[in-house]
Amino acid sequence: MKIRLPGGFQASGIISGIKKNGKKDLGLIYSNIPAHAAGVFTANCVQAAPVLLDKERIRTGRCQAILANSGCANCCTGDQGLDDAKKTASWIASGLTIPEGLVLVASTGVIGEYLPVGKIESAVPNLIDSLSSGGVFDFAEAIMTTDTVPKVVSRRGEINGKSYTITGIAKGAGMIHPNMATLLCFLCTDIKTTSGVLHRMLSKSIRRSLNRITVDGDTSTNDTALILANGFSGVSVETRDEEELFQNRLDDVLLQLAKELVRDAEGATKAVEIIVRGSESDDKARRVADTIAGSNLVKTALFGEDANWGRIIAAAGRSGVSIDPDKTDIYFDDVLMVKNGCGCGKDAEARATYVLKKPEFRVIIHLGKGEGSASVLTCDLSIDYVKINANYRS
Amino acid sequence: MKIRLPGGFQASGIISGIKKNGKKDLGLIYSNIPAHAAGVFTANCVQAAPVLLDKERIRTGRCQAILANSGCANCCTGDQGLDDAKKTASWIASGLTIPEGLVLVASTGVIGEYLPVGKIESAVPNLIDSLSSGGVFDFAEAIMTTDTVPKVVSRRGEINGKSYTITGIAKGAGMIHPNMATLLCFLCTDIKTTSGVLHRMLSKSIRRSLNRITVDGDTSTNDTALILANGFSGVSVETRDEEELFQNRLDDVLLQLAKELVRDAEGATKAVEIIVRGSESDDKARRVADTIAGSNLVKTALFGEDANWGRIIAAAGRSGVSIDPDKTDIYFDDVLMVKNGCGCGKDAEARATYVLKKPEFRVIIHLGKGEGSASVLTCDLSIDYVKINANYRS
Repeated sequence: MKIRLPGGFQASGIISGIKKNGKKDLGLIYSNIPAHAAGVFTANCVQAAPVLLDKERIRTGRCQAILANSGCANCCTGDQGLDDAKKTASWIASGLTIPEGLVLVASTGVIGEYLPVGKIESAVPNLIDSLSSGGVFDFAEAIMTTDTVPKVVSRRGEINGKSYTITGIAKGAGMIHPNMATLLCFLCTDIKTTSGVLHRMLSKSIRRSLNRITVDGDTSTNDTALILANGFSGVSVETRDEEELFQNRLDDVLLQLAKELVRDAEGATKAVEIIVRGSESDDKARRVADTIAGSNLVKTALFGEDANWGRIIAAAGRSGVSIDPDKTDIYFDDVLMVKNGCGCGKDAEARATYVLKKPEFRVIIHLGKGEGSASVLTCDLSIDYVKINANYRS
Repeated sequence: MKIRLPGGFQASGIISGIKKNGKKDLGLIYSNIPAHAAGVFTANCVQAAPVLLDKERIRTGRCQAILANSGCANCCTGDQGLDDAKKTASWIASGLTIPEGLVLVASTGVIGEYLPVGKIESAVPNLIDSLSSGGVFDFAEAIMTTDTVPKVVSRRGEINGKSYTITGIAKGAGMIHPNMATLLCFLCTDIKTTSGVLHRMLSKSIRRSLNRITVDGDTSTNDTALILANGFSGVSVETRDEEELFQNRLDDVLLQLAKELVRDAEGATKAVEIIVRGSESDDKARRVADTIAGSNLVKTALFGEDANWGRIIAAAGRSGVSIDPDKTDIYFDDVLMVKNGCGCGKDAEARATYVLKKPEFRVIIHLGKGEGSASVLTCDLSIDYVKINANYRS
């Protein structure tokens, strides 16, 4: 469907000069009426100033505007960082004439540098003037760091014959690992519900989407996922059935965003789903899948389009979960490459190599020990990943 | 000191045709008299055939010869793999006219391929004929995979006025992580002691050396460390004092080998010691150090010679150990870069950048929470690491 913001929302994104490369770096989301809101934040002990501020403010369950910037994480910046975050929020509140407590903030970029608040203060009037119901891509561009494309997904749903919209905007690229929220992700919807319901649904969706992807095993200090519901559509989500209908659409939006994040991961040439089946439990399957998905040796083999299944079984073997190699089978898509821990020969290898040339495929590991299963979406580790991350600050 | 094998030991290394590149790939260590022996093996659930065979045979505490090959790991090869390992050992036993149970084997290389036993059988006579007291470097070359230099360390010690020698040979390069033994490592000494004492001392030394290094977080299926003591020098190691003297020398040999392994890690341009101090316990310090040492974002920044300390503190923050950023200091060698979780400015950064240009340096993280400490030796993640591992099997 055409990508659009839900009713009552506007967005903008402009160049304020925070980024050295002269690209858009400051974005604003605004709801014409105060929205119910919920958020999920990084599990890292080291939390950026905007995360600390949002965690405090989101307790009211209300939000009307989100100010986000790229180019500077405002993390490890102490009391000054927190003051800076509050200051920028207050300028937005004044400009929009809304209560300061209804403004949330988010930052992404280099850790350890102070926010250039002067540049932001100068840019706020233009940022507010630029707000429009069509500004969602400008906002999405303004939060990009090493992302190569803006990520926006929109879905329309229907409840009791009335239609509503969910639009999600995310940025990722690196420092992505399934641990609580990941990256920056903003969800706007025009349904009517409470912040408690929103929090429950957001957490559930994240477990099924953003927490199932890994790029480099690093968890950011700034991870933030926020959802705003302004009730503009008049669609109420109150009963269990209504919740389920909305949950499905929300899952859909977040899963789509998660896939786009992996496809556009730093230097990635392939998005690969690692599926573990036949484990003693879902939890054990998850640990095996995570270990394989995070192995540099597996990820470099994927980059090299090499069906080096030995690295996959070796990663499974060191996951901390007891596996039995003699019962382990490995498939690349539908090609059986390993049966009972032994390779299936040159013909299977030739067919597997064909699968590995595709930009997206599945690696399925059957452990033959039970009914538990799990899956994780990962990408390859390429020369460009190293180049991007060796030169990130320069 | 001049590198030499201890008395009564001989070694050889030749080209048998297992490796596609035509380099040495088959090595033999032989003691003129049966030696006392001990071994430490991989903690991976997936264990190669030679590991399974050695774990069985080492129970006697005796060994007289070690046959090692590169180019093929003989792992995930089922019953045939185990038969192959036994066969190759039996040819060595016949050739040397020693009991088959005194021959141990070790393999390294690609997982999932069968050992080319025909090539090995043809090569055994030449391998045995080539044995000499000066053959240690030939052996060291024969076990190399992606290593660029052979790794041999020799130390002489004195106990009760009599001198003895320890010589260690190792191969590493990739798939290195501190979990039990790592890689292939063979230690020969001419002291006289029991296999029980050897096992205790070997395990202790490994904890202090091979288990303190990480290259890519992957643990191999073939990790094997063996020690042989043939008593040739007449030096007995029996009392606690004698043990301590020998332990110091053994630590020295293994620590030196560990350093050489990191320096020669796949694609590495830098060897960096990550030291965590001020933790609530040594164990927690270790978890923080391991997380930093294993972070791809930290390792790519090291490659880029970028003092991006935000990635270091972010890795510490996601280690699972509760840290307090406001109490955390970070040094690059003696340059204080981060004080109480905040950067120390442009001057400190300029000095830290100078440190990062060195091939070896330390990153010290003070957590300000207690007396626990730990250190891990790691390397950078370079473009060459990806190239080497994307094309390993081709």
